[in-house]
Amino acid sequence: MTRPTFAAWLSDTNDVTQTFLAAGQIPGLINLAGGLPDPATWPVNDLSKLAERAVANHPSEALAYAPISGLPILRDLIATRFSAPGFTLTRDNVLITTGGMQALDLIGKVLLEEGSLVAAQSPAYLGAFDAWRPRLPRYRPMVLEAGDFDPAAAFAGAQFAYTVPNFSNPSGRLVDLTQRQVLVEAAHQTGTWLVEDDPYGTLYYDGAPLPRMLTLSAQHGSGPYDGPVIYLGTLSKELAPGFRIGWVIAVPEMIAALVSAKQGSDMSTSGLCQRIAYDAISTGLTDRVLPGILDLYRARRDALCTAMEMHLADLFDWEVPSGGMFVWATARDPRLNTDDLLRVAMAHGVCVSPSSVFDPEGMNRRSIRVNFTLNNLETMIEGVRRLAVAAKSVLSKTG
Amino acid sequence: MTRPTFAAWLSDTNDVTQTFLAAGQIPGLINLAGGLPDPATWPVNDLSKLAERAVANHPSEALAYAPISGLPILRDLIATRFSAPGFTLTRDNVLITTGGMQALDLIGKVLLEEGSLVAAQSPAYLGAFDAWRPRLPRYRPMVLEAGDFDPAAAFAGAQFAYTVPNFSNPSGRLVDLTQRQVLVEAAHQTGTWLVEDDPYGTLYYDGAPLPRMLTLSAQHGSGPYDGPVIYLGTLSKELAPGFRIGWVIAVPEMIAALVSAKQGSDMSTSGLCQRIAYDAISTGLTDRVLPGILDLYRARRDALCTAMEMHLADLFDWEVPSGGMFVWATARDPRLNTDDLLRVAMAHGVCVSPSSVFDPEGMNRRSIRVNFTLNNLETMIEGVRRLAVAAKSVLSKTG
Repeated sequence: MTRPTFAAWLSDTNDVTQTFLAAGQIPGLINLAGGLPDPATWPVNDLSKLAERAVANHPSEALAYAPISGLPILRDLIATRFSAPGFTLTRDNVLITTGGMQALDLIGKVLLEEGSLVAAQSPAYLGAFDAWRPRLPRYRPMVLEAGDFDPAAAFAGAQFAYTVPNFSNPSGRLVDLTQRQVLVEAAHQTGTWLVEDDPYGTLYYDGAPLPRMLTLSAQHGSGPYDGPVIYLGTLSKELAPGFRIGWVIAVPEMIAALVSAKQGSDMSTSGLCQRIAYDAISTGLTDRVLPGILDLYRARRDALCTAMEMHLADLFDWEVPSGGMFVWATARDPRLNTDDLLRVAMAHGVCVSPSSVFDPEGMNRRSIRVNFTLNNLETMIEGVRRLAVAAKSVLSKTG
Repeated sequence: MTRPTFAAWLSDTNDVTQTFLAAGQIPGLINLAGGLPDPATWPVNDLSKLAERAVANHPSEALAYAPISGLPILRDLIATRFSAPGFTLTRDNVLITTGGMQALDLIGKVLLEEGSLVAAQSPAYLGAFDAWRPRLPRYRPMVLEAGDFDPAAAFAGAQFAYTVPNFSNPSGRLVDLTQRQVLVEAAHQTGTWLVEDDPYGTLYYDGAPLPRMLTLSAQHGSGPYDGPVIYLGTLSKELAPGFRIGWVIAVPEMIAALVSAKQGSDMSTSGLCQRIAYDAISTGLTDRVLPGILDLYRARRDALCTAMEMHLADLFDWEVPSGGMFVWATARDPRLNTDDLLRVAMAHGVCVSPSSVFDPEGMNRRSIRVNFTLNNLETMIEGVRRLAVAAKSVLSKTG
């Protein structure tokens, strides 16, 4: 007796995320690999009260099946929050998702078939590949900062372009205003959907946030939003990941398609979590916790970069990111294979993300992603010290 | 400028579920169409305390990303709850899902490719088709109660067989012990996976629950569970749907594949909802509320069937279901098209589910599914009265 075979895409899964999550269990290992928030930023007392009241005062929202598209009050709130002068969104522009990841899954379901083309910012978020792998798409990598980058050519024939303009995972890179305008213009010109994945949009440490491509794309017309941007937000970085609350903002036609896909994905997102999200945003809790999050993470980014200057400046190049959760560093010596580095680093008690996992072809083997949000200063500095020892050990063996 | 086309499966979506949900908003309409629990069964006070404590006492579970496979304590609890004498499950047999629907989505992702064959109990749960539509499978309907039903022939070549043995949606039918054994035997013989979808497994009104096929299938060997059954459970009917908590029980190899699919679907299920589910089950809350749920729904089933005897006995045949949420009634006169009936019934202020929506080919147009869990007795009786008027009106026009 043999079992039916699994779908072909499963032979090509990413187990790196699971490896990193498991790394959290290894005693003494300093985990600079993940992208986790510091639990100290969670307003536990406030949230426990909101959770109690959500059930006690709003049982018909918290305990029932929510509408597939989300609680109307939460959709309205998100619509208002992302509207701008001259740019009015309504609940028909908004879908509530079970975390940001589900939005990626739903986009894959409604736009991708086997062989469909995705133009993806490179390097790109690992989780997006996870979400789309069952749909068997092809990828066209877009190096936005390359001198010869031609967005119209990159978008041509693609079902959508995928970008993380604010402090991209893994590169930490901020897409500047001019480039945002160029991307929006290319989307208008080619008709391609432009996915603006924005989990880190609130995590600006050094200056005022740049305009969203969603907002920029709306300036091309009047009336209801009819632009090419599919904007993805999440509460995971702003409040806490455990609620699994995200949202999509797009034209109503796209929202309707995503609702059809969500119906067969999980029917609806937890009403309890949606009600808590509504209360946390509408009572100003998210606004009250944000300054503390920014101060904490800014100090950690600074400490990480200082430690890297001290221990890694000879080995790696990097830019100090102005937001987000990661520093992206590239080995000066092309012989420093960062897959090898990860193995040796783990033996030295520290874990970072190697660049190969952010590249669908796994070609880039020279960079690392270093997280600065999870660990306290001392731990992070010790992690960098260990990483330097590991990197020197790898290089010494390459002769 | 034209937008990229949507994936082909979207041209074939089911908007009936949305229509029925929207029907809940029409003033005065009696909704016998859905499959919703009565909110009066929810232990609101207990749940609001559990929600508060989940956050306050267990923030690292409630507010963090949970492991993809689920909180270990909840997986252990489900494993223990579904173990039986001589049949021990462990957490490696258990995946926590975002509601029962997500389990269906994940099964489709790991087992179906375009053209893959599913042997599906007929009539079958509408939501399962929603979940699998993006994978473009073929269906082989299985009429389990047909005299010439040959399970080995039905299973041959199928990636999996899909069944709802306890009070199937929509038919309300209970698969008897002999037939369960026959299905399990056919799965062992053919190697086909046997999906046992069991949302109504706690809703037995007249007798003791029959053994699960999961349990029956384990009796073929010793050691860890290595059987062909993929068992799906949910908290939605037992406690409340708003938590979106379900679970899969299967061999570790299948759980691992489903975890890979879940990683790219929503990363993990809400830790808050999982912690509440753990507390609700482990403190006995679910056991305490069950007798009240059974008494309420049993009385409503009896009242519905009595009203149907009074108003519909000349028009429809049905069996009184011994559990679940639905009565399935088939028109005596083949000219009574139940799609037409729905339209006329809604004009008369009552809504039921026509059989066409439970049939992938939409061929069966002679039956209706009537829900008895949502409405109080008076409302239900009035709904049946209106339905009878509507049915007579339809028949009078067929000449």
